[in-house]
Amino acid sequence: MEITFLGTGSGAPSRARNVSATALHLPQRGEWWLIDCGEGTQHQILRASHIRLSQLTRIFLTHLHGDHLFGLPGLLASRALAQGGVGPITIYGPDGVEAWLKATLRVSGMRFGFPVTFVTVKPGEVCTDGEFTVTAAPVRHRIEAYAFAVREAEQAGRFDVAAAAALGIPPGPLYGQLKAGKTVTLDDGRVIEGSALVGPTRPGRCVVFSGDTGPAPELAPLAKGADLLIHEATYSELDRGLADRAAHATATVAAEVAREAGVHSLLLTHFSARYEGGESEVNLETLLSEARAIFPETRLAYDQLRVSVPRREQ
Amino acid sequence: MEITFLGTGSGAPSRARNVSATALHLPQRGEWWLIDCGEGTQHQILRASHIRLSQLTRIFLTHLHGDHLFGLPGLLASRALAQGGVGPITIYGPDGVEAWLKATLRVSGMRFGFPVTFVTVKPGEVCTDGEFTVTAAPVRHRIEAYAFAVREAEQAGRFDVAAAAALGIPPGPLYGQLKAGKTVTLDDGRVIEGSALVGPTRPGRCVVFSGDTGPAPELAPLAKGADLLIHEATYSELDRGLADRAAHATATVAAEVAREAGVHSLLLTHFSARYEGGESEVNLETLLSEARAIFPETRLAYDQLRVSVPRREQ
Repeated sequence: MEITFLGTGSGAPSRARNVSATALHLPQRGEWWLIDCGEGTQHQILRASHIRLSQLTRIFLTHLHGDHLFGLPGLLASRALAQGGVGPITIYGPDGVEAWLKATLRVSGMRFGFPVTFVTVKPGEVCTDGEFTVTAAPVRHRIEAYAFAVREAEQAGRFDVAAAAALGIPPGPLYGQLKAGKTVTLDDGRVIEGSALVGPTRPGRCVVFSGDTGPAPELAPLAKGADLLIHEATYSELDRGLADRAAHATATVAAEVAREAGVHSLLLTHFSARYEGGESEVNLETLLSEARAIFPETRLAYDQLRVSVPRREQ
Repeated sequence: MEITFLGTGSGAPSRARNVSATALHLPQRGEWWLIDCGEGTQHQILRASHIRLSQLTRIFLTHLHGDHLFGLPGLLASRALAQGGVGPITIYGPDGVEAWLKATLRVSGMRFGFPVTFVTVKPGEVCTDGEFTVTAAPVRHRIEAYAFAVREAEQAGRFDVAAAAALGIPPGPLYGQLKAGKTVTLDDGRVIEGSALVGPTRPGRCVVFSGDTGPAPELAPLAKGADLLIHEATYSELDRGLADRAAHATATVAAEVAREAGVHSLLLTHFSARYEGGESEVNLETLLSEARAIFPETRLAYDQLRVSVPRREQ
């Protein structure tokens, strides 16, 4: 799993940050998913040479504010023009996306060049395919809004190659059977239990996207033990009044969620443009300090930042 | 009058060119108008430091294909956030814009932060205010599409300061009366006709935007004698088959319109991405040569190109 931040600003684009979009790559499957799609997301993808629109298979919308939505028609239109961009796509979002996109097709004379499935998000499991499960939790914003957790299934334990070699088991097809936990009888009559050579199952990775939200009690349970929490931090705690009025989080609030959930690391995003440009004494370093005071494993996202989410050893 | 090209590509954005949008500045009025609004137009405006969203007063849409339309919701949302962005705006376009924008407001929970008036474009006069008149002509595209001519009203003739001085008329208020064509009696009893000191009225300037179109007989009459014709040239004449299928113009077609209309200069825009990147033997220089063979005063537009349209002396 790898994340590419395509837009880390809030409300309107600035010269430094585009509006919201995040790519989640699943390299083992040769595909990637998109979380939110502000205007100009397809332009950001053009700048990210490792991302191909044709390999996008799922789009998850946390809510339907314009800075998370208005890039969707153009991105879908360009995907149809991209070489190989004919595979199906599924769009998960709050009620209203399908009707609006269909109105957009009508007014613009556009057709999807590929099959599109719409799924209305409700709290709970959004989709699962054995390898990954996406779960939604309601969060607290000015309109219907969700956080998403993407959880990988448990991984089989490691096969102890050294132990197998020490037992004199010849490398080859037997290894595969033992890895799968089967019992194997060797040519010399010894019976080997695969389970003795395979370590404990390992938890799958988990990445959580808060979307836009004020303090939301549903978030920490959703993010429990996640490898990476990507949480909005539109404001500094010094501007808590602004945050509360707009139903957004401060860096402090985000860090408290990370601490409560016991995540491995926290990435802050969705920053107000007021902290750019050095006009204010309060800037993004302020936000970072606020968060690290509570949750040290915190970083600030920026446009085009790539972050790998490795499997953690236990 | 000054033009800034904000997007000179076609269909989908490329790394070099955004989708369609052109700014027409009227510096004497402290305002500017926008012709078409592809996705990312507001991002292009951020890069053009001389353009402020708050000073945008009119938007003209040649047609409603996505690469001319999908930037509109985000641009309007950001204008409401811009300092001073509270003045009214009028949107001129084919039928359907208003209903789509209102559906977009509903789904996204957005409100215009300023008064918006919608005017459905039909062939003929679109708007006039004494100083400028905008006229639409139907063109030939895959959906309802218009070209727009923006014509400045006739300008008063030049006042001959040297002749007035030679007659011994003292500079001051009398000059103003004579400039206005009035008859003035000097202190020494001489009677001076203002009309004798004022040259002939001068035609106002005219800029014509073709929008997207194949060969359209309505265009040359609309552009007759224009100072500047901005004409799409999606394709080279070598790809005339592609142009015909998509109802687009070639560089040759654009130059023929310029020649027939007797315009002062021609700017080509809306280029297919196939001519970028040097993969093809046919490139934008090919298009330029094709056009100049027919109409020498031709240039290629590019993103962020600024072009002044000066008053021409007769």
